[in-house]
Amino acid sequence: MTPQEMKAELKSLGALVEGRLATVFGDGATPVRLTESMEYSLMAGGKRLRPVLCLAWAELVGASAGAVLDFACAIECIHTYSLIHDDLPAMDDDDLRRGKPSNHKQFDEATAILAGDGLLTEAFTLASGLALSPDRVLKAIFHLSTAAGPRGMVGGQVLDMGLTGKSASLPQLRQMHAMKTGALIESSCVTGCILGGGTGGDLALASEYGRAVGLAFQVTDDILDVVGDTAALGKPAGSDEAQGKSTYPALLGIEKSRELARQSVDQALAALAGFDHPRADFLRAVAEYILDRTH
Amino acid sequence: MTPQEMKAELKSLGALVEGRLATVFGDGATPVRLTESMEYSLMAGGKRLRPVLCLAWAELVGASAGAVLDFACAIECIHTYSLIHDDLPAMDDDDLRRGKPSNHKQFDEATAILAGDGLLTEAFTLASGLALSPDRVLKAIFHLSTAAGPRGMVGGQVLDMGLTGKSASLPQLRQMHAMKTGALIESSCVTGCILGGGTGGDLALASEYGRAVGLAFQVTDDILDVVGDTAALGKPAGSDEAQGKSTYPALLGIEKSRELARQSVDQALAALAGFDHPRADFLRAVAEYILDRTH
Repeated sequence: MTPQEMKAELKSLGALVEGRLATVFGDGATPVRLTESMEYSLMAGGKRLRPVLCLAWAELVGASAGAVLDFACAIECIHTYSLIHDDLPAMDDDDLRRGKPSNHKQFDEATAILAGDGLLTEAFTLASGLALSPDRVLKAIFHLSTAAGPRGMVGGQVLDMGLTGKSASLPQLRQMHAMKTGALIESSCVTGCILGGGTGGDLALASEYGRAVGLAFQVTDDILDVVGDTAALGKPAGSDEAQGKSTYPALLGIEKSRELARQSVDQALAALAGFDHPRADFLRAVAEYILDRTH
Repeated sequence: MTPQEMKAELKSLGALVEGRLATVFGDGATPVRLTESMEYSLMAGGKRLRPVLCLAWAELVGASAGAVLDFACAIECIHTYSLIHDDLPAMDDDDLRRGKPSNHKQFDEATAILAGDGLLTEAFTLASGLALSPDRVLKAIFHLSTAAGPRGMVGGQVLDMGLTGKSASLPQLRQMHAMKTGALIESSCVTGCILGGGTGGDLALASEYGRAVGLAFQVTDDILDVVGDTAALGKPAGSDEAQGKSTYPALLGIEKSRELARQSVDQALAALAGFDHPRADFLRAVAEYILDRTH
């Protein structure tokens, strides 16, 4: 699969996700201001990487994208809530997100806190409403909530706060990222695989692919922050270092960071080696694409 | 059942809940500061009314308390997160909660936001880990997340913010409370009933009981705020009015508010009329107890 074909496929699956996200609060059962605030961030674009990974892994092991779409949307709700809360004045205090005012700037702080809370909770309504084998859905919810919660993303955010302004060691940096961003990316792959009916072996490979892609993604983000490809990240070059955050290039240098990203992508490709399926080609191309962003 | 017997039973079921809550983060998989912050609020006492209602309704229709304990604890995690976020400076800006510094005062604002996020997410790990029929568990998770989310508690909090400083109408006040506090109390009863294997008829009665008890609880809270029984609420008398919040006594007067509370309790008792079971006696005594707080 060429990068162009992959991008077209990514766009098409992303559009499927966005189409469903746009209807989630369409029943009029939520207060207008809350709906506006949640949809402001939910519909603000982005590549929808996490839900697309969920859909692709589900299809790879035999499900249809439509059957797991609401679960994929649940993952995007969780990702979006985490961005809203991360931007709050008490956290990263970011006024901008993807070139637009962050949620608390567009609305107000209380509304932004509640929009985040609302999206996080709604994720589990979407997930538990899935019309698939209850066994699989329950197992996927358990995996997702563990990855997003105190043992995963939320815990990683606390570790990140603890490291800010200090020089972290490489193991500390890796553990923090594995929890803060890696866990949700991994869970996107694993839950797709669970919902699609993957075997225990499939789940282990989905986990390996997801962890490797998550690490590659973080390392290349750090590299882009240094080399200053602002368009790719939507934030000013050097902003992480300016905020006193440790990065892979700061710890390893640019070249060794590039090597680490390359190794991670190779690991992701290795996890897919046994799959002969169009979705495996797509997932391989996604992994390569992450790396290509730094060239 | 005498009020004394009911209180002993409430204490005993509450102790069961607290015993389990104390072990939730005992696996060492969560960062120390986050664990401390979550447990600071989770173990701060309270009557554990919501999880106890869940346990009692499950037992009433035939399950054991032990089988649904983790789900009951999930409900208490959600209730606790809502208190932490409500107290934040951008929300009610409360420095004290049950006579102790509120979470953001004891720790800091970022940690309090994340402790709330962590408890909310952990609730769904606890709920989805339940070793009961996956069908029932999934249905209960759907009910709970709907009640706690933008269509319920979170939406009610947004409505409350919109009403602060304005004079609300009675229908506005009732809708706001039905979402902000009523939905989670109702869901505690209904999810217990779902998990216990209740029939469709049982679920309707659990819902009716829960909604009536939730309303009675809110009205008597408002009355206590006016008549100044500070010990019962753990906050200064008149604090709701001082914050510019509409109350039932302000809209209806004390006597009509007492009548409304009495009617609600009668409705709760009517929902239980068909049950001949020790747990029905307990649930009747709980409903009566809510009312007795105002005398």
